Amino acid sequence: MKSVVLTGGVGGAKLVLGLIHALPAADVTAIVNSADDFRHFGLAISPDIDTLLYTLSGKANAAQGWGREGESWAFMEALRSLGGEDWFALGDGDLALHVLRTARLAAGESLSAITADFARKWGIGARILPMSDDIVATQLVTDEGRLDFQRYFVERRCQPVVRSVEFAGAATARPAPCVVEALLSPETDAILIAPSNPFLSVDPLLAIPAIREALRQASAPIVAVSPIPGGQAVKGPTAKLMRELGLEVNAAAIARHYQGIADALLLDDRDPPADIHMPYARTDTLMQTLDDRVRVARAALALAASVAP
Amino acid sequence: MKSVVLTGGVGGAKLVLGLIHALPAADVTAIVNSADDFRHFGLAISPDIDTLLYTLSGKANAAQGWGREGESWAFMEALRSLGGEDWFALGDGDLALHVLRTARLAAGESLSAITADFARKWGIGARILPMSDDIVATQLVTDEGRLDFQRYFVERRCQPVVRSVEFAGAATARPAPCVVEALLSPETDAILIAPSNPFLSVDPLLAIPAIREALRQASAPIVAVSPIPGGQAVKGPTAKLMRELGLEVNAAAIARHYQGIADALLLDDRDPPADIHMPYARTDTLMQTLDDRVRVARAALALAASVAP
Repeated sequence: MKSVVLTGGVGGAKLVLGLIHALPAADVTAIVNSADDFRHFGLAISPDIDTLLYTLSGKANAAQGWGREGESWAFMEALRSLGGEDWFALGDGDLALHVLRTARLAAGESLSAITADFARKWGIGARILPMSDDIVATQLVTDEGRLDFQRYFVERRCQPVVRSVEFAGAATARPAPCVVEALLSPETDAILIAPSNPFLSVDPLLAIPAIREALRQASAPIVAVSPIPGGQAVKGPTAKLMRELGLEVNAAAIARHYQGIADALLLDDRDPPADIHMPYARTDTLMQTLDDRVRVARAALALAASVAP
Repeated sequence: MKSVVLTGGVGGAKLVLGLIHALPAADVTAIVNSADDFRHFGLAISPDIDTLLYTLSGKANAAQGWGREGESWAFMEALRSLGGEDWFALGDGDLALHVLRTARLAAGESLSAITADFARKWGIGARILPMSDDIVATQLVTDEGRLDFQRYFVERRCQPVVRSVEFAGAATARPAPCVVEALLSPETDAILIAPSNPFLSVDPLLAIPAIREALRQASAPIVAVSPIPGGQAVKGPTAKLMRELGLEVNAAAIARHYQGIADALLLDDRDPPADIHMPYARTDTLMQTLDDRVRVARAALALAASVAP
């Protein structure tokens, strides 16, 4: 059973990890948000892609939720001693991804080609596709003005009140090679939307016209996994952001958000009965262990199979 | 007594360290070879300047002869896992200099301004001036063809046979701010040429017309410290290179090389009596301990005072 998953970073990577244990890894394609990507000290940083690379190669720091296991921080210490900006933490090993990606982009390679090569070097069997090789940049319109994503997310720790979210460049961005093909392939049995932040991590993909159109045309069933089990965000600013955007923080609001895109929703056992106007199933969607991740992946695939035409 | 020293990396840095213990640090100006500078993965690397920064701030790895004490190598390990070129070792802490310098150069700052700021941040009292803010690149014409300096020096470990040495860009390079002023200042009591490789580390400075002219005009005495005590290079390819360039490997050849530039030569106690056509003095020029470095610095300053007009 071949599956394609639209994903952001941490939460989504857990589902993708579950998928590659539930299915042959080669049957899993992750289409990854690249609107969090940014330049820092001139280095090309792709946080969500890197989270996938670390998670699927077994290098992720599970306790911390981002970065590499066993990371060291000599670079940051030296950077501080030189008066360099230190609001974004760059681990010593992590720097290799950014430095090499920057050099290869400068040499004319595409983000998708570089990502595929990194995944191959690290023995990752699943396919990791950036949503686009074009630059798309998430920007938050807040009570403190317009903020680039990482400034909002990392430097300001999601504290500013968000009025709206914009994806600069999305309207003209082309999907990366294989993205549309994967979504439209008759061999694709399920398209999953990972339990990443819908407004920050999934919406950038949906803001690219050719991806939205491919989802509309896709014959495979589309199942979204709710990111707010019991109305609580597992991690990150989803609940806070939903309130600021004037939404209720519950599965029904997630269902309304994905209305017209998803065919079904995987809810959490904790979710109260609610007015969900699409097919749904329930499981415990908290993914703390690998077993949890495999279980959630299987539940999502089963839900997809149940709504398939 | 104010002194200016023309220097390359490791050997020269030892003399400069001796000088800042023999004199108030603020009375020492180092004019540093920047023709070894290169771009690696797009990062701006200035090996000789960095050796000065590490040595004068007490961060140098004395045993290794380059880089930082207590350096870690997680970046290189990760880089190798991604298939990145690993012939040039970039330590985790060392990367901070290169990443920050690259970003500040891209923002329009000059190498000299960035270097001055790094030195200040690390509490270095001496003045460290790159020879030029313009790009000058040492190239070796060898039996394997033309090689950029770091490819010859690091990747090929000085193994190719050198036919000639060229300094691309030197003829039109302008000295960095304060370089000519330091050489010509009536307050400068001595100009020293450090025991760096004359052909690779000092000649680039001499190849910049305005520096050569300032040395000709300078009223301060100019003393070169011989880099080949007893006809042996302390470290690096000086002796091998001199043979390849058709020179005898002795102090007389060094004296001939600096003829017309230096007013006097500081020789090593081990040097055999030779045909030296300029004033000279002798000391033990091997600089293994800090005391050695201070002694050699004092001997060079004394020789300068003895030949002053």
